[in-house]
Amino acid sequence: MELKIAVLPGDGIGPEVTTQAIKALNAIALEFDHKFTYKQADIGAVAIDKAGSPLPDETLELCKTSDAILFGAIGHPKYDNAEGSVRPEQGLLKMRKELELFANVRPVKAFEALLDHSPLKRHLIKGVDISIYRELTGGIYFGKKETKEDGSYASDLCEYSAEEIERIAHLAFKAAMGRRKKVTLIDKANVLDTSRLWRKKVTELAKSYPEVSLDFLYVDNAAMQMILNPRQFDVILTENMFGDIISDEASVIGGSIGLLPSASIGKNYALFEPIHGSYPQATGQGIANPIAAILSAAMLLEHFGLFEEAETVKEAVERSLKLGITTPDLGVKHERITTEKVGDFIADFISNPE
Amino acid sequence: MELKIAVLPGDGIGPEVTTQAIKALNAIALEFDHKFTYKQADIGAVAIDKAGSPLPDETLELCKTSDAILFGAIGHPKYDNAEGSVRPEQGLLKMRKELELFANVRPVKAFEALLDHSPLKRHLIKGVDISIYRELTGGIYFGKKETKEDGSYASDLCEYSAEEIERIAHLAFKAAMGRRKKVTLIDKANVLDTSRLWRKKVTELAKSYPEVSLDFLYVDNAAMQMILNPRQFDVILTENMFGDIISDEASVIGGSIGLLPSASIGKNYALFEPIHGSYPQATGQGIANPIAAILSAAMLLEHFGLFEEAETVKEAVERSLKLGITTPDLGVKHERITTEKVGDFIADFISNPE
Ligand SMILES: [Mg+2]
Ligand SMILES: [Mg+2]
Repeated sequence: MELKIAVLPGDGIGPEVTTQAIKALNAIALEFDHKFTYKQADIGAVAIDKAGSPLPDETLELCKTSDAILFGAIGHPKYDNAEGSVRPEQGLLKMRKELELFANVRPVKAFEALLDHSPLKRHLIKGVDISIYRELTGGIYFGKKETKEDGSYASDLCEYSAEEIERIAHLAFKAAMGRRKKVTLIDKANVLDTSRLWRKKVTELAKSYPEVSLDFLYVDNAAMQMILNPRQFDVILTENMFGDIISDEASVIGGSIGLLPSASIGKNYALFEPIHGSYPQATGQGIANPIAAILSAAMLLEHFGLFEEAETVKEAVERSLKLGITTPDLGVKHERITTEKVGDFIADFISNPE
Repeated sequence: MELKIAVLPGDGIGPEVTTQAIKALNAIALEFDHKFTYKQADIGAVAIDKAGSPLPDETLELCKTSDAILFGAIGHPKYDNAEGSVRPEQGLLKMRKELELFANVRPVKAFEALLDHSPLKRHLIKGVDISIYRELTGGIYFGKKETKEDGSYASDLCEYSAEEIERIAHLAFKAAMGRRKKVTLIDKANVLDTSRLWRKKVTELAKSYPEVSLDFLYVDNAAMQMILNPRQFDVILTENMFGDIISDEASVIGGSIGLLPSASIGKNYALFEPIHGSYPQATGQGIANPIAAILSAAMLLEHFGLFEEAETVKEAVERSLKLGITTPDLGVKHERITTEKVGDFIADFISNPE
């Protein structure tokens, strides 16, 4: 397969972890006879510094003419107090909007070698393997906002159309078909009209996927179940705000946020990025954990149907964890293992699995 | 002190746990020379059965002429498929509304004797002591709802007035003054206008409580922090929906929902109830854990400034847990200890602490 990949390393540790992800992709290309080509562009603080905009036109253009986007991280403290329009984070938000990336996909997996890192007791976290589908461009974050001038009142409108619900629901059900065939819709249908619309549309659409079982959970109960029994979940489907809360809650139960990849998917484009931030104070020190970026590359492979290739990357990652060839955030071994060494090990293991 | 207490045992295990709470209150009255009088009324399924309404007028009237309301639990499966107006749960919702109970207060405390029951690792849960103030009568649950007839669109409006924010914020800051003097406002002020209004009003109001430190946490981050480091929280203040999610998440970290009390407070009235439900299948078997109801009675005492009395109840509860004199849900001892025996032990300990 030939894939044109736009590489947007961004700020802070973004470039160094993205470099390791590309190493893994190159090893896969060689091993499986694919042709991956990369073009790099600026986004975030680095783009503001160079071009005055967190998302320069040529970056957006490159994304639109590529098959996929490999993204690093965004954000720098020097822009923390800057006005809205020039903040680095606006680059990512604008890109999501321009490319209509309506589905945020976040896998949460308990790695056997890291069970002791979890805040949850071992027997609860063992075997957890969840894929969360969060709607990303609708709901209360994007609805009409109002604040009275005298500061006595404010409001936010949560809105959903049937179409917004259906397009992400299809993605979730399709994903479930390749997994344990279970979708859990998280909503608050006992109270909210938007939630009742979600429940109705998803229930109708589920008939097209007769092999997939569908169940429902109120968001408050879901917040409890994520702690009490996270293994019950396979694919979670939910609206924007509930997804924000539940996916962040889920992101910590595994014990390391440095391991978690994500994908943001639209009709025509797809972007892959670690969920961790730009971690500017660690830049260039070789301590950034590259695994989330490497697993994001694995999600990219899956997105194009390259499942065996993705599995190979994941096996290499698991091996590095098992052997303790990890950055200091995981503290498995005492000797100093750099970002690059972890990336090298994983790429080498892809090329030469023992 | 003289207190007229309306007792609303409700459904399922409600009556049996409420009986134990009254036992504890009677022991306190005797020991501290107070006069508590009780009048009982029906609510929930039992009220529908007898009077055709989940909240009969005379029950509401009794509540309005009492100093406080001691509530059991509500709900019976035979009404699970009933229409909206005759569901038992409507009794509680209607009462909250009629009595303007705008603040829901939920303490979450890690009991030393039960640390091993927590889904979290011991070192994370040890010492946790949080009091959550959730706004209960505003926000998206009560805003205008709309669904288009053709099912293509739905919306829910989240609204807050400055006054709604301020009245509960005062309660939270006052509570913090009697605790570790820290308030954390949970919001999503980077996205929502209502959250920005909360942040503005609470920041202004904090100036009246110079000893109390105020910090802010986005709700998605709060959902992570509740797992990673719950000990950081003292008083949590938040709006209705965020409070629903975060307080339910917090309710499971301690390891037993059978221990958690709550209060719903308005300008003129206050109601105290265990957070657990009516658990109908356990009715009359003597297995219901009465501790949440007994700790709700302790919250009632605190509400009227009877802090030493409340402390005495809590000590008796801790002693029962330490000695393993608990119902089977906590499984501390193997012999069968009934709801009544736990209540007796706690009342006796109040009268005769060793
Ligand atoms: Mg988030
Ligand atoms: Mg709830």
